Amino acid sequence: MQIEGLVSSSDSKARAGTLSTDHGKIQTPVFMPVGTAGSVKSLSPEDLIETGSQIILGNTYHLLLRPGMEIIRSAGGLHKFMSWKEPILTDSGGYQVFSLGHLNKITEEGVVFQSRLDGSKHELSSEISMDIQRSLGSDIVMAFDECTPYPATVQQAQTSMELTHRWEKRSLDYFRSTEPYYEHQQQLFGIVQGSVYPELRQKSARVLVEMGFDGYAIGGLSVGEPKEDMYSMTDRVTDILPEDQPRYLMGVGKPEDLVESVSAGVDMFDCVLPTRNARHGILFTWDGPVSVKAAREKSQHIPVEAGCKCYTCQNFSRAYMRHLFKANELLVYRLASIHNIHFYHDLMAKMRLAILEDKFLSFKTDFFNRYDLKRAGAGS
Amino acid sequence: MQIEGLVSSSDSKARAGTLSTDHGKIQTPVFMPVGTAGSVKSLSPEDLIETGSQIILGNTYHLLLRPGMEIIRSAGGLHKFMSWKEPILTDSGGYQVFSLGHLNKITEEGVVFQSRLDGSKHELSSEISMDIQRSLGSDIVMAFDECTPYPATVQQAQTSMELTHRWEKRSLDYFRSTEPYYEHQQQLFGIVQGSVYPELRQKSARVLVEMGFDGYAIGGLSVGEPKEDMYSMTDRVTDILPEDQPRYLMGVGKPEDLVESVSAGVDMFDCVLPTRNARHGILFTWDGPVSVKAAREKSQHIPVEAGCKCYTCQNFSRAYMRHLFKANELLVYRLASIHNIHFYHDLMAKMRLAILEDKFLSFKTDFFNRYDLKRAGAGS
Repeated sequence: MQIEGLVSSSDSKARAGTLSTDHGKIQTPVFMPVGTAGSVKSLSPEDLIETGSQIILGNTYHLLLRPGMEIIRSAGGLHKFMSWKEPILTDSGGYQVFSLGHLNKITEEGVVFQSRLDGSKHELSSEISMDIQRSLGSDIVMAFDECTPYPATVQQAQTSMELTHRWEKRSLDYFRSTEPYYEHQQQLFGIVQGSVYPELRQKSARVLVEMGFDGYAIGGLSVGEPKEDMYSMTDRVTDILPEDQPRYLMGVGKPEDLVESVSAGVDMFDCVLPTRNARHGILFTWDGPVSVKAAREKSQHIPVEAGCKCYTCQNFSRAYMRHLFKANELLVYRLASIHNIHFYHDLMAKMRLAILEDKFLSFKTDFFNRYDLKRAGAGS
Repeated sequence: MQIEGLVSSSDSKARAGTLSTDHGKIQTPVFMPVGTAGSVKSLSPEDLIETGSQIILGNTYHLLLRPGMEIIRSAGGLHKFMSWKEPILTDSGGYQVFSLGHLNKITEEGVVFQSRLDGSKHELSSEISMDIQRSLGSDIVMAFDECTPYPATVQQAQTSMELTHRWEKRSLDYFRSTEPYYEHQQQLFGIVQGSVYPELRQKSARVLVEMGFDGYAIGGLSVGEPKEDMYSMTDRVTDILPEDQPRYLMGVGKPEDLVESVSAGVDMFDCVLPTRNARHGILFTWDGPVSVKAAREKSQHIPVEAGCKCYTCQNFSRAYMRHLFKANELLVYRLASIHNIHFYHDLMAKMRLAILEDKFLSFKTDFFNRYDLKRAGAGS
């Protein structure tokens, strides 16, 4: 998968381009809202389009357990099941097996685990993950990997990385030997591991590039390591990844992380943070996060962010949203999620524009001058 | 308040017309979704408009306790607070004080009660209720009444009714002596009580008509009495109410109740049933209610109702909605509510059309021939 019309900024590694899938084009850098169980929590497909979403992420692990592949296949794939006509990226299921599953056994072959929903036994391996993602019909498929836990010794990280490389090679071979279930093509991304060890990260990137994927992800970050490690690992990996293919930093992150990582040459991101924070009343603004549940908002008949073009800010006040939170009114989870997802997309769009105008570094400076990372009362 | 362009059907007491308010016209018969705490649960103003909502109801009791009148007034009224530009009807608060409040004292003057939220003490009386509804800025204000509990002896019902009449007279006098807080005019409706006793109901209707309200409601029904009593009380009251003014049957009801009551000459309805049922997965169709949470729906890749024009049926399947319910995904409460509110409005619109074409009785016969009141598995 080529990144088309690539424009690189002269003052950083930031870049802008376009990805083409059979479900439409994606302008990068791009943030992908997370639709864990076949729904980006509280948002409809129209909400997603209106906030600027170009591609969403689906979780193989959750969809495998519920509703299960039989139902997704009989629906004609995940796009049709959830009525989403734009691109979808699915993960391999591995990460959630390790973080959420009742893990029974991990072997060279793959993983056996129990469903947390009904105790049923399931297997996941390179081949099974590819089959499931063929059934889901995502536009971008992720190779099966082990997300190295943090912290890990260099030896543990290396052992885990080498297992990941074998699993990814099997993913690639199996993927190339099978056909899509539906009418559209699918792309396979490899995942770079190696924990916080520069040599391992560089090795992993080289091994994967040698295998030849359609795009490359950086996994195993934003798992508890210091921010500096996250940024420096990303920076080293993007130095090795091919210029003309997309780079995806998995599970990241906060607005400041997105700015830093675009600066380091990343094109794609996903994170539950904007929707999860929204449901807790933490809304993002260009001045930093705000808690609309705070008592000080109760008579604030002004939008979350003046000038914001999102549906929520165009129609509703902080006072109303605070009231809805206090009254546990369902509408507010949607209104808050619309604002946060719009903010994330707006941030990406402004970074893209800055890159196209070759002003990225000045954008970044302005952003950090204004954005208060630890704004009072906003929690995390 | 006159009902304009009144068309009466020749084969029943059903009628169609138009009500004019400063926030727009309302075509009757009309169903009013309930926005208890300043939000019709899970729906945005745009959702309401798209489903066909012309007017919504707000609950004085809930809004008084939270967010309180100071915040509503500083927002510029309930319309602005919740960003709803169409008409609003508010109740007097009396019904919820009796059904939800920790009642401290009921006297000739009014009611003293404690907030269930924070234990704070509040008073409600004819004058206070009018003041609150002036602050809310609803287009239609309800007189302060006592909703006679069911069952009640004829003596209890008469005593309660007479208190209601005194409270309603005070409501009317106070309302006429005060001005709207905002730029738009408000109308005051009286409420007929009298439990299930025909003579009391007739007396109550005559007394209220004599006082001279802008419209008339029928209260104290759908509170546990047999359906036949509800229908026959409504029928007797509409015989007395002025032909050229609107009639509103409070808190009713199921689709079959709406058809029976329109047949008896009622113009306006409100009920939490369509939104509450939606949140429990009970969806209305022209064949009767359906539970989309049922196991038999899990692979039904068809809409809730074939041919339904609502957003939900145009985009999503029963299988997807069942999955969302099982996964507790917030989106489904909205999708289900959109369908049910659309169904209610569609039912009213089809009754209106049948009246205008003078085919109401044949519409009613067809409806009951098709609609299965106790459809299997649908719950209540």
